[in-house]
Amino acid sequence: MADRITFQVNGTDGAARTGAISTPRGEIRTPAFMPVGTAATVKAMLPGSVRETGADILLGNTYHLMLRPTAERIARLGGLHRFMNWERPILTDSGGFQVMSLSGLRKLTEKGVTFKSHIDGSKHELTPERSMEIQALLGSDIVMCFDECPALPANRDRIAASMVLSMRWAARSRDAFGDRPGHALFGIQQGGLEPDLREQSARALVDIGFDGYAVGGLAVGEGQEAMFACLDHATGHLPTDKPRYLMGVGKPDDIVGAVKRGIDMMDCVLPSRSGRTGQAFTRHGVVNIKNARHQDDARPLDENCRCPACTGYSRAYLHHVFRAKEMISGMLLTWHNLTYFQDIMAGMRSAIATGGFTAWEGEFHATRAMGDIEPL
Amino acid sequence: MADRITFQVNGTDGAARTGAISTPRGEIRTPAFMPVGTAATVKAMLPGSVRETGADILLGNTYHLMLRPTAERIARLGGLHRFMNWERPILTDSGGFQVMSLSGLRKLTEKGVTFKSHIDGSKHELTPERSMEIQALLGSDIVMCFDECPALPANRDRIAASMVLSMRWAARSRDAFGDRPGHALFGIQQGGLEPDLREQSARALVDIGFDGYAVGGLAVGEGQEAMFACLDHATGHLPTDKPRYLMGVGKPDDIVGAVKRGIDMMDCVLPSRSGRTGQAFTRHGVVNIKNARHQDDARPLDENCRCPACTGYSRAYLHHVFRAKEMISGMLLTWHNLTYFQDIMAGMRSAIATGGFTAWEGEFHATRAMGDIEPL
Repeated sequence: MADRITFQVNGTDGAARTGAISTPRGEIRTPAFMPVGTAATVKAMLPGSVRETGADILLGNTYHLMLRPTAERIARLGGLHRFMNWERPILTDSGGFQVMSLSGLRKLTEKGVTFKSHIDGSKHELTPERSMEIQALLGSDIVMCFDECPALPANRDRIAASMVLSMRWAARSRDAFGDRPGHALFGIQQGGLEPDLREQSARALVDIGFDGYAVGGLAVGEGQEAMFACLDHATGHLPTDKPRYLMGVGKPDDIVGAVKRGIDMMDCVLPSRSGRTGQAFTRHGVVNIKNARHQDDARPLDENCRCPACTGYSRAYLHHVFRAKEMISGMLLTWHNLTYFQDIMAGMRSAIATGGFTAWEGEFHATRAMGDIEPL
Repeated sequence: MADRITFQVNGTDGAARTGAISTPRGEIRTPAFMPVGTAATVKAMLPGSVRETGADILLGNTYHLMLRPTAERIARLGGLHRFMNWERPILTDSGGFQVMSLSGLRKLTEKGVTFKSHIDGSKHELTPERSMEIQALLGSDIVMCFDECPALPANRDRIAASMVLSMRWAARSRDAFGDRPGHALFGIQQGGLEPDLREQSARALVDIGFDGYAVGGLAVGEGQEAMFACLDHATGHLPTDKPRYLMGVGKPDDIVGAVKRGIDMMDCVLPSRSGRTGQAFTRHGVVNIKNARHQDDARPLDENCRCPACTGYSRAYLHHVFRAKEMISGMLLTWHNLTYFQDIMAGMRSAIATGGFTAWEGEFHATRAMGDIEPL
């Protein structure tokens, strides 16, 4: 089965589950956090370092890559894995979400979306068929359906219309994807915060049949409580024997709450983006390294962390290089944040496997509630 | 002798020589190229990566560090080595050169220089005594005398007056440095392009007595021919049993020409600064990675280079990430450039040791003259 993508659940604890997705490019331990490598690089990191944090899979952005350096160019150069020097699995999004959030002068029709590039104003088109073609050119291991994602809040009619359009696009994506051994196609559930629309969307996707199912259209401004309430029922409509992927999530406590509700995969720019703005995620919560309280602090960011920022440097150093706008600041804090996110995932995988998820979750929240160490 | 700094010449070939400086923090193989870690970081590199390129020693800038985060703070935090996580030798400059090139509203007197910080406009003073104090607080292994360096061209009277002032400051630096086992103090020869002033300066320094001798006041706009003509005689006045350090040099062919003329140590921001602007140094000369000729080029920058940029990526990728302003661009090109510079040094050390420097130099120039590989 080395040329097929398979999913196996090895343990459950409540709704939470742990397992593995097997692909020709390696195993993805679940629940998995996928660092985002937007423009064929996880910002401020070399791929070997990303792997050292514990990542089994990266996410690439169709929208960015189709505009620069273009999917055709990446294909000529041997595909995205070789291009960015990451030989393990890559999931690509469909471009749909970022066309809506980044490009100019969009026009949405039944066929797809035409838009202008945010880089040079050039005109482009994305359709389910073109998105499948681009993701095939990139050589993505896990391909996402092309969908439309309305910003929340939106009225029910808008959400319903968008969802049924996305379901028609999901069927076209499935047809265009065809049969590609070793590559998976995931459907994306929509329906906003409306339980019946979520259920209707899930049924439509299952009827089409996918290798995995994403929960889309969340983490777009609705707040954690609403997101969790939606997940409480949304995941229940999705098949138990396929991976469930919550797109664009999230903060550490969002991730833990999503896994608790049966999510297997997540991605977010938060650990890398925050690393470049001086924000570190630790077991004790968020630390803003630019704060003057750190300037004479010889202690590490987190004395129990295994990353180079914590084993090699003081808070005073991290503060200094952030203030001096040195590249090593973003490099070290990104490495730390990605390590912390992967350590959360490893902790949850292990806790679920031994039936200790509730205890693990309690400790996770209790440690965060303690807050950062006292200033010197 | 583990607590003393010693220098041994192990081989010579013409005026070129190879050997080693032994320090309590490790050996410095000469001729040595010192990457510049201005603000307690070699820009875009982690210290372990700098070491992997082959560097035995780094240079730190007194001027930058005294202003931010301050020498006193670094001392409280355990010294510069621990602060920046580099346990091998560090040479610090005296601050004199950068006060002249970077700060505002300078006032030069017999005592020293008062100036305003380029960061926040705060007022500071640097004297030979204060420079020695700062370099001791930093914990520098090789300390440089505080000197005054006039920009070239300058008239002979200005150069002569500056040189004799620097020699008085050299004597005060020597007195202020005192006896610090395991730490070395280097004098700095001045005298512009005037042979008799260079000789007079060398005699003054030797009379005071130093652990090493730098050639200062070059690579400030005089051109390579004038610099080499100066080195042809300037190094001859310096003791043969102490290291000779050419400050602020340079381009690869400057470095080779300096070693040919008896120089043992050099430093320059060129490999790191150029790396951040898309300029790569290769055996075949300079490659500007931003040039569109690279956008579809699957070949590495240099197929014989051992650095991650060359072993892991195509020119097309390096071009893409430079255009996309991704941090990995500066990270990879800096790593490449530092590797190339260190490989030149290793090549020269080996050639000198076996009496093959002339042949090595001929090949170095012939390979460069071939130019970059043809576009695809």
